[in-house]
Amino acid sequence: MARSDAPDRDDGRFSYEGLDRVIHEKARLSVLTSLVAHPKGLAFPDLKRLCNLTDGNLSRHLAVLQEADLVSLEKGQVQNRPQTLCRLTPAGRGRFLEYLTVLEQVVRDAARAAGPASDLATKTA
Amino acid sequence: MARSDAPDRDDGRFSYEGLDRVIHEKARLSVLTSLVAHPKGLAFPDLKRLCNLTDGNLSRHLAVLQEADLVSLEKGQVQNRPQTLCRLTPAGRGRFLEYLTVLEQVVRDAARAAGPASDLATKTA
Repeated sequence: MARSDAPDRDDGRFSYEGLDRVIHEKARLSVLTSLVAHPKGLAFPDLKRLCNLTDGNLSRHLAVLQEADLVSLEKGQVQNRPQTLCRLTPAGRGRFLEYLTVLEQVVRDAARAAGPASDLATKTA
Repeated sequence: MARSDAPDRDDGRFSYEGLDRVIHEKARLSVLTSLVAHPKGLAFPDLKRLCNLTDGNLSRHLAVLQEADLVSLEKGQVQNRPQTLCRLTPAGRGRFLEYLTVLEQVVRDAARAAGPASDLATKTA
């Protein structure tokens, strides 16, 4: 059979333990990126629209994020109608930024590995 | 209640539809990054070590990736012992690079949003 590449020495070199699964899930990553971009918070319908999620899906993911103390949900009234304001907590912001440094490392590792022939490597070089 | 930020106009602005769930799952992202870094392929035990996965977990994720035609598994013999060589397929490489451009966009969006106070924004500026 073909000879494989000599493996890197380091155990777990590509394991990316810092990719917190609570944050990494696609819909929740979308929610958190929306919220970090809107520090004053977003009303539920606006967040739903930005993330392109259904009511049920957004509610479910917000519950997971609230349970993990990454977001806070404030129920209130706007023009006599009930509204939920969703915000990143200070701890949530910190954990999300830590997560992003790992994500950045993934992109950097992969771009370097993919070589100069890939558009990606050109763009991130 | 506090007033929320004015939301971005664009529906789905942060939905990142291109984050293919087959690739995005943490362990599979680890496997694919290892394989893109080793174009000649990696033997199962080396891949396992680089990704810090158990035999069972790696087998399960490789089956998903093979089913999606992202990786190929070649069974052979090395010094009279059975060995599985894992490689990215050409289609897999293409799809992984597409995925990475979306991931890069997430990092860019979030770094911009987090502002100059974050280490991340400083590093990616």
